Amino acid sequence: MNMVDLIQKKKDGAELDAAEIKWFINGYVAGSIPDYQAAALLMAICFKGLSRRETFELTDAMRYSGDTIDLSPIDGIKVDKHSTGGVGDKTTLVVAPLAAALGVPVAKMSGRGLGFTGGTVDKLEAIPGFRTTLEPEEFLRQVNDIKIAVIGQTAHITPADKKLYALRDVTATVDSFGLIASSIMSKKLAAGSDAIVLDVKVGDGAFMENEHDAEILAELMVDIGDKSGRRTVAAITEMGQPLGQAVGNSLEVIEAIETLKGRGPADITELAEKLSGIMVYLGGKAATPEEGYELTRQALADGRGLAKLREFIAAQGGEAGVVDDYSLLPQHSLKKELLADRDGFVQKIEARRIGLASQHTGAGRATKEDTIDLSAGIIVRKKTGEAVRKGEVLATLYGNDEKKLETAAAEAAQAFCLGESKVFAPRLIKKIIGI
Amino acid sequence: MNMVDLIQKKKDGAELDAAEIKWFINGYVAGSIPDYQAAALLMAICFKGLSRRETFELTDAMRYSGDTIDLSPIDGIKVDKHSTGGVGDKTTLVVAPLAAALGVPVAKMSGRGLGFTGGTVDKLEAIPGFRTTLEPEEFLRQVNDIKIAVIGQTAHITPADKKLYALRDVTATVDSFGLIASSIMSKKLAAGSDAIVLDVKVGDGAFMENEHDAEILAELMVDIGDKSGRRTVAAITEMGQPLGQAVGNSLEVIEAIETLKGRGPADITELAEKLSGIMVYLGGKAATPEEGYELTRQALADGRGLAKLREFIAAQGGEAGVVDDYSLLPQHSLKKELLADRDGFVQKIEARRIGLASQHTGAGRATKEDTIDLSAGIIVRKKTGEAVRKGEVLATLYGNDEKKLETAAAEAAQAFCLGESKVFAPRLIKKIIGI
Repeated sequence: MNMVDLIQKKKDGAELDAAEIKWFINGYVAGSIPDYQAAALLMAICFKGLSRRETFELTDAMRYSGDTIDLSPIDGIKVDKHSTGGVGDKTTLVVAPLAAALGVPVAKMSGRGLGFTGGTVDKLEAIPGFRTTLEPEEFLRQVNDIKIAVIGQTAHITPADKKLYALRDVTATVDSFGLIASSIMSKKLAAGSDAIVLDVKVGDGAFMENEHDAEILAELMVDIGDKSGRRTVAAITEMGQPLGQAVGNSLEVIEAIETLKGRGPADITELAEKLSGIMVYLGGKAATPEEGYELTRQALADGRGLAKLREFIAAQGGEAGVVDDYSLLPQHSLKKELLADRDGFVQKIEARRIGLASQHTGAGRATKEDTIDLSAGIIVRKKTGEAVRKGEVLATLYGNDEKKLETAAAEAAQAFCLGESKVFAPRLIKKIIGI
Repeated sequence: MNMVDLIQKKKDGAELDAAEIKWFINGYVAGSIPDYQAAALLMAICFKGLSRRETFELTDAMRYSGDTIDLSPIDGIKVDKHSTGGVGDKTTLVVAPLAAALGVPVAKMSGRGLGFTGGTVDKLEAIPGFRTTLEPEEFLRQVNDIKIAVIGQTAHITPADKKLYALRDVTATVDSFGLIASSIMSKKLAAGSDAIVLDVKVGDGAFMENEHDAEILAELMVDIGDKSGRRTVAAITEMGQPLGQAVGNSLEVIEAIETLKGRGPADITELAEKLSGIMVYLGGKAATPEEGYELTRQALADGRGLAKLREFIAAQGGEAGVVDDYSLLPQHSLKKELLADRDGFVQKIEARRIGLASQHTGAGRATKEDTIDLSAGIIVRKKTGEAVRKGEVLATLYGNDEKKLETAAAEAAQAFCLGESKVFAPRLIKKIIGI
């Protein structure tokens, strides 16, 4: 096989076969195919696309490009949950304990935040003592014992995806459905769960900016899951404004705990019930999705979810006392309020700007190497559709650096669009695919 | 400026401005823009194209990416000639002495052959003693003295083109009109002549395989020449079968000399008259192209072209005696004849296969590092449209390695298509643009 011919074939709009895709992925990981040839192929893929078959083959080749996790020592149907990323998305911290409380084994790997989006691993690390690195046996044992463990990604999972993603990032070849779907699904499949619940975010704070695109991506991922023998369900959910009110690591931990206490914002509560309900259904602990939703509501109402979170934190070395005493979390020394400059209704909150503002407070990183301030972030006080009076607080920014807070406040101010007409909040759950 | 944004802009189909193109070229030559980003941009260009303005800007940026040649110390209107490359194309060896004999200064840089195409520098080096490297002052003095000098390309001309071409070659991004046109024209413009005659070859032995594409390329190059203040004319000429009969370095030198003696094949003679005639016209030595053609015919008939070739060879240290004694050229020890296996007419000769066969005899190189056998090559005995009887010689292959000749003969055999119907030879000169 010859890389120039392979690039030319895709450039001409032909389908690559399984052997060609595998040869490319293996050669690229091994270093025998250079970045510049991979870049040319990626750009040709952006223009000519990948068929469903090619997308599956690419996913499969990346899935097996490094280690894969064997979760068979864990009893039951293991269910994973993945979000395509957004602003204020602390859903995993609520959903995973709820599903685990209902008997579904959740053996999950999560990522860190980058740019305007956050990551579950950073949020967990806001909890004093919490270890996001466990030995494999420790990880498996914990899930068997208490049904839940969440760790950071290990270095040897899907190296092909890591290398390709880094290249896509610097060659303007990120936005291809086939490349996005295979990147996400290769990691999820390598991570070994039996079923996968995908939360495909849509809106300006997400990678997919419109519902049509989100639906294409969701269907593609469900198709890959099915072709790989893993039951996969995708929910398309709102990310046109931040999810909940808290954005930033310890602030989101607090909001997740509040939600498990039954006092969380309506949107995060609703989303958690839905996603956890689907996990419970896929995990065989409910006969229908509806039964799953109902069981989740009960586990939330009677405190089983909260108890499971406490158990989970303690099992991974974290200070479980944070559940009752938020002052045990990293503390900010400064706060800054963003006030409404007129009466009206919140027409829109640009999630991406809130995400950037949160990054500016110190809560996020611009590059992978940046360190973050786990105490920093934003609380959104008024959400889309709410009435507001001049001088009322729209958002509060927290951190430890006055200058950073100023930059953040300027960015956040631009995120809020106030107007005279009453508007409705955007629908939270647009569609569920694959159920 | 940021390379990812620039790639994205082209990917979105927008026009790059002059500053962006210059920034890219300078950064790429300096090494601050890596190959993988250049490869992604090149592929996006293949899909989205370059406007005429962008093509000019790219040419201009590449033209000035290294040294440029100042030919102002040479008197008169300097006229360059360039072929896009073909099989058996020894035209420069005939055309340049004819134009020079008629008073047009020809200060030319030529290239080497690669793959199935030959190069003028290799052909000149078949002449014992011929030096294709001259000091700049020597080069200028010679053109002032005898109106002609031909040298190999110096290392510091258009480094951007060299680097980009090498990358295009390994990333399947060769076939873009804008990239091809800017590659050719940047070199020609940096080489400093006042006017340029382009021979755009079309057919399976050329880069452009159909007349429509050849015309687009020709018009694009004429446009670049005009925008750069250099009078440019392009002839679109046949390369569906080899030009003349000889393919291979010393064999082509002999055919060129025969042509200047008035005994050359009809096609190479006709092409030489046309191209030289245009050079004479552009060089101000004829009032009309027609007068240029007529003057060229006279210079050919009365031996002035041949005398100029002799003078030219001697001036560059070559053995001018080769003009009268072909045995002074490198000699082959083996020959192999390819016979017709039936009666009929030659329907078609695939020039590319003849070029490959010649390469297999040892006359060409697969990679730039290969050494070549200057004595080897092919004489095509029957051309398209000619009648042939079973057992007659279609072509003779020459060289010094039995095994190589066998491989070459097998390839050459496939080049000839014999059939029962009488066909006409393809028209040699399809179109002349820019006159």
